[in-house]
Amino acid sequence: MMTGRKKILISNDDGVKAKGLASLIEVAKEFGDVLVVAPHMPRSGMSSAITVELPIRLRCIEESEGLQVYRCTGTPVDCIKIGFDQLLNNKPDLVLSGINHGANSSISVHYSGTMGAAIEGCIHEVPSIGLSLCDYRPDADFSLMIPYVRNLISETLNNGLPMGTCLNVNAPEGTPKGITVCRQGHGRWVEEFDARKDPHNRDYYWITGYYKNMDNGMDDTDNHALAQGYVSVVPIQIDMTNHGHIETLKKWKL
Amino acid sequence: MMTGRKKILISNDDGVKAKGLASLIEVAKEFGDVLVVAPHMPRSGMSSAITVELPIRLRCIEESEGLQVYRCTGTPVDCIKIGFDQLLNNKPDLVLSGINHGANSSISVHYSGTMGAAIEGCIHEVPSIGLSLCDYRPDADFSLMIPYVRNLISETLNNGLPMGTCLNVNAPEGTPKGITVCRQGHGRWVEEFDARKDPHNRDYYWITGYYKNMDNGMDDTDNHALAQGYVSVVPIQIDMTNHGHIETLKKWKL
Repeated sequence: MMTGRKKILISNDDGVKAKGLASLIEVAKEFGDVLVVAPHMPRSGMSSAITVELPIRLRCIEESEGLQVYRCTGTPVDCIKIGFDQLLNNKPDLVLSGINHGANSSISVHYSGTMGAAIEGCIHEVPSIGLSLCDYRPDADFSLMIPYVRNLISETLNNGLPMGTCLNVNAPEGTPKGITVCRQGHGRWVEEFDARKDPHNRDYYWITGYYKNMDNGMDDTDNHALAQGYVSVVPIQIDMTNHGHIETLKKWKL
Repeated sequence: MMTGRKKILISNDDGVKAKGLASLIEVAKEFGDVLVVAPHMPRSGMSSAITVELPIRLRCIEESEGLQVYRCTGTPVDCIKIGFDQLLNNKPDLVLSGINHGANSSISVHYSGTMGAAIEGCIHEVPSIGLSLCDYRPDADFSLMIPYVRNLISETLNNGLPMGTCLNVNAPEGTPKGITVCRQGHGRWVEEFDARKDPHNRDYYWITGYYKNMDNGMDDTDNHALAQGYVSVVPIQIDMTNHGHIETLKKWKL
């Protein structure tokens, strides 16, 4: 299967010190040389944000056989972009992002910095996978999903992905029952901002809320797979056009 | 056409003082009561980012007949979320975002805070439109696109949009030749980070680059419409699944 050492670019959104990143680096090293460019601090919920108002710092913090690790003050997407522009001479064979501490299934694909980095790899025309575990704890146990991650990396290197498509992979807590390919579940976060008063009696708000599943009864979604104890794999495309609605809009009086 | 006053929620990513926002408020007021929740400073390139590490401040800075304006320290998406949760009793009839100073066509839909806010309105199941002018200047002239904005608002209120679909509208500089419905153009930003030394001789980087069109010769894209002098309208969907690739992935050895 292996035809020479591959080059793999990795980022995440929990920061360069996250346990999930360390777990991903270990499995990626089995396949090739690894370049890590990860945020210097947690940047969850950064989506595909880029840093335009501030300059970015980049620093190599580890260098060993087959591994280079950089920390970057930018967003996950900045990390991927600066990796491509400043650190790589040639396109890598694969871009990986994660493993995220916490789920990025369903509508969360839009808010996730983990998926922002994976989508950015895809925009750069490199097969890309975003990986998440449904466990927010800093000491979450990633080992049970690693066999699935290994197979996903292997199959992605073997088969490639269509231009403009990457993978959103989520694993349940505990030992997965298996793995299933599915679609992005339909649902949304219902926010309930937590309003408080600061010591100067001024209002401030923390974002909080719960996930509302709007796919009741459907069994082909990532949420359903996770609820049943399976790893979910959703092919995500960067073309966001609703092609089926173009003809309808053409009839509007514009 | 008008059946009672509508309620319209507006945000943007250039900040509450931007000229493009003022232009959008003026035309929206023709259709109904307007609630503005906009970032207190420019938040371009924020995509669908949310603020999880910091609390959010929210302050009413203007209140007049049919208009309330709040400034918010959060991202464009935070603005929409807090508007729904803290300021609106009922769903608005329409969510508008912009008018952005600068294009948000093609792949920029992924990075745009303007589109982040519009997509968030769509996730909340309200017809939503993101609007941009291909002119980055603070004093850009929005008046020439206003007749098109007026028609788009009117037709969206009349016809609605399918669940999970919003509009990405971009106008060229100068007088538009017309308006056309199209797909998201295929291309990407090629970054060329500008590496500099600070006064302490340490490296830092500014993100910069150019847009690479990868749709050579295709005439059904937003980029093509804009290059020809037309306003572009792209229906954008929040389901990012590449449904056509699910069966292929199911054959992988996972």
